[in-house]
Amino acid sequence: MNYSIAVIPGDGIGPEVIAPALEVLDVVGDTFGHIFNYAELEAGGCAIDSTGEPLPASTLETAKQCDAVLLGAVGGPQWETLPGNLRPERALLGLRSGLGLFANLRPAALLPQLRDACPIKDEVLAASNPEGKPSFDLLIVRELTGGLYFGARGRSSDGTSAFDTETYSKAEIERVLHSGYAAAAVRRKKLCVVDKANVLESSRLWREIAQETAKQYPDIETTYMYVDNAAMQLVRAPGQFDVMVTSNLFGDILSDEASVLTGSIGMLASASLGSAGTDSEKGTVMGMYEPIHGSAPDIAGKDTANPLATILSAAMMLRYSFKLEKEAAAVEAAVSAVLDAGYRTGDIARRDGKKGEEKIVGTKAMGEAVIKAL
Amino acid sequence: MNYSIAVIPGDGIGPEVIAPALEVLDVVGDTFGHIFNYAELEAGGCAIDSTGEPLPASTLETAKQCDAVLLGAVGGPQWETLPGNLRPERALLGLRSGLGLFANLRPAALLPQLRDACPIKDEVLAASNPEGKPSFDLLIVRELTGGLYFGARGRSSDGTSAFDTETYSKAEIERVLHSGYAAAAVRRKKLCVVDKANVLESSRLWREIAQETAKQYPDIETTYMYVDNAAMQLVRAPGQFDVMVTSNLFGDILSDEASVLTGSIGMLASASLGSAGTDSEKGTVMGMYEPIHGSAPDIAGKDTANPLATILSAAMMLRYSFKLEKEAAAVEAAVSAVLDAGYRTGDIARRDGKKGEEKIVGTKAMGEAVIKAL
Ligand SMILES: CC(C)[C@H](C(=O)O)[C@@H](O)C(=O)O
Ligand SMILES: CC(C)[C@H](C(=O)O)[C@@H](O)C(=O)O
Repeated sequence: MNYSIAVIPGDGIGPEVIAPALEVLDVVGDTFGHIFNYAELEAGGCAIDSTGEPLPASTLETAKQCDAVLLGAVGGPQWETLPGNLRPERALLGLRSGLGLFANLRPAALLPQLRDACPIKDEVLAASNPEGKPSFDLLIVRELTGGLYFGARGRSSDGTSAFDTETYSKAEIERVLHSGYAAAAVRRKKLCVVDKANVLESSRLWREIAQETAKQYPDIETTYMYVDNAAMQLVRAPGQFDVMVTSNLFGDILSDEASVLTGSIGMLASASLGSAGTDSEKGTVMGMYEPIHGSAPDIAGKDTANPLATILSAAMMLRYSFKLEKEAAAVEAAVSAVLDAGYRTGDIARRDGKKGEEKIVGTKAMGEAVIKAL
Repeated sequence: MNYSIAVIPGDGIGPEVIAPALEVLDVVGDTFGHIFNYAELEAGGCAIDSTGEPLPASTLETAKQCDAVLLGAVGGPQWETLPGNLRPERALLGLRSGLGLFANLRPAALLPQLRDACPIKDEVLAASNPEGKPSFDLLIVRELTGGLYFGARGRSSDGTSAFDTETYSKAEIERVLHSGYAAAAVRRKKLCVVDKANVLESSRLWREIAQETAKQYPDIETTYMYVDNAAMQLVRAPGQFDVMVTSNLFGDILSDEASVLTGSIGMLASASLGSAGTDSEKGTVMGMYEPIHGSAPDIAGKDTANPLATILSAAMMLRYSFKLEKEAAAVEAAVSAVLDAGYRTGDIARRDGKKGEEKIVGTKAMGEAVIKAL
C-alpha cells in the first residue's frame, strides 16, 4: 500500500533525528512491501525565518491531505522574544487543533537496558511495581486541543492584568476518556483520571463525566487523583499507574515529569490522534508523531542527538495511523536489539561507571545500527 | 511578650499533630519568657459537621484578631461528595484569601539524617549539587490568593461545559516576587521564576514583570523556566534550585513534587504570609503555618502520625510571624537532635534494612522526645 507522510523536520536537532527515521521507514517499506511518500514541510522557527509565520497555511493544508505527520522538533532561543502568536510553538498548537488531534499518547516506561539511567532508586520502583520489579510502564493520555491552551485569553486595557481561560465541554472530555480506555483495554486495564476537582469547576466536570464514562468500561479499573498528588505519586510509586488521562495543561506537566523518570527522554515517542472517525478509505487514522524531547539547539548539527525517540515515533505511526502492527513491532524490536548490543548515544550512556560494555555512537551511526538490526 | 495564636486542629490526624506542637510552644514560652495564648477554632470537615460550613465566620474573625494561625490539616473522604463550595478545602482557601496570605513558602530540603528515605539516587542528586553532595535544599514560593484558584468559574446554562479563569494583576505578581527575593537574599541568592509563557498570556505577564522586578535585585541571579521543564528538572537535578517563585496552581503541583523528593513529607512545614504591611504594633506579621501533609484519615487516631512537620511549622511561625529567630532555631535544633538520636515515626523509618539504629515511636512519644531535646 501507498502511504503519504507529511514530514516536518523543524528546528535544532529536528532535521538530524528525522533523517534516520525516514531511512528506517524506507527499509520497513522495502521489507514489507509498502511505499511511503514524504511531503517535506516547514513549520516552527525555520518557517518564521522563511515565511514570517510559524505555521504557513500551505503546511497545514498539505498535512491535512497526508495520512499522517512525522515531526522532529520546533523552537529555539532566537525566536523566543517574538510575540506569542508568532513563536515556533504556535506551529505545534496550530497543527494539533488544525488536524483535530485531541488525544496525545505519551508512553513512559523504564527500558530494562536503560535501568541505570533512571533517577529513582530501585527499591522505590520495586515497592509500587505489581510484580515487585524495579520498573514501571505507564501511558499518559493528554487532552490536546482544549483547556487553558485554547481558551480565551487577553490583557486588561491598561495592560496591568492578564487572563487565560480553562474551558472543557462534555464532548471534549468524553472523547479523550474513550481514547484512554481504548489504550487501557490493551494494556493492564487500569485508568487513573487526574484533575483538581477540589478547586476547579472544569475539573469537577471532568470527574462527573469520567464517573459516567467509567460505567461503560466495567472491566477496567477507574481511579481518580488530584494533580498535586499525581505529581507526588509519579516519583514515589510510578508502578501504581497504567493509563493516566488528564487535561492539556496537567498532561503537559505530568508527562514531562514522567518522561524524566525513565532517565532517557531521548528514547520517548509520542502520538497525537484524532477520532477514529477521521479514517480515510484506506483505513488510516490521522495522527502526528514526534519525539518528546525538544529541539535542543545546543547540540544541533553535532551528530550527537539520539534518533531513537523519532524512530520509535515512526513505529507508533505505523501502528496507530496505518494499522501496521507487525511493521511497528519490527522497528521496536530493532531498537531493543541495538540497545542490547550496547549501542548508546551520549544521553543514554551508563552513569554507573561500568562503561566498558557500551558503544557510544552519534545520531547517524545509531540510525544505521537500527537499520542493520531490521 | 504575649502572642495570640489561632489554633485550627482540623480533621483526621490534625488534632494529633497539633497537640505536641502546642506543647513544644509552651516549653519555648517557659524557656524564653513568652506567653502563647491559643484560641482553638473549628474549620474544615469538623466545622461542616457542627455548623454546616467549612469556614464559620467566627473562625475567620477570631483568626484575624490573632497574631498568627497554626493549622493541622483539613479534609476527609466523608466530605468529598459535597458541592464545591461546601467542602473542607474551602476553609483553607477562605483563610488564605480572608487573611490576605499571598505568599506560600514551602521549603523542601533533604535532611542528612533522612537521606536514605529520598527516592532519588545519590549520584543524580550529587550531579546537580553545587558542592557535589547528594543533597538539595530548595524553597518554593507559591502565589496563594490569585490565579485559577480564585478566578471566575462556572458552567454553561445546560451544564455541559465548565470554565475556570486564571487571572493575575501586576500588583499580585510583584508582591509575591518580592517575597521570593526576600527569601533568596538570606539563602543562596538564586531565584527561578516558573511559568508557561510560551502558551499563557498570564504567564507572559508574569515573565515581563519578573524581568522588570529582577532589576531591583542585581545581586540575586534570576532565571526563568517553563513549568513542564521545571517538573522535569526537580527530579533530574534538584540541586540547581534555590528559590522558585510561581503561580498558585503551578506552585501546588511543583511543591508537592518537591516534597516527595525529600522522602519525608511528614517532616515538611509551610508558611503562608501576607505583606509586611500587616504588622501590628507588636511587630508581628500575620501568617498561617501548617504541615504540607494532609489529614491522612486512614491513620487518624492511631498515634502513628509524624508530628515533626507541625512542630517545624510552629518554628516557622516563631521566625516569620513573631521574629523570634533564636526560639525558632532552638525548636529546629531539637528536631534535628531527635533525628540524630535515631527517633523515627513509621513514615521516616529507614528503607535500607539497617533498622537496628533507629527507635520507632508514635506521635506522642516523638513530641515528648522533641520537648526533652529542647
Ligand atoms: C512547546 C509547548 C507549547 C508544548 C506544550 O506545552 O504543549 C510542549 O511543551 C509539549 O508538551 O509538546
Ligand atoms: C486542599 C487543596 C485545596 C490545597 C491546594 O490546592 O492549595 C492543597 O493541595 C495545598 O496545597 O494546600
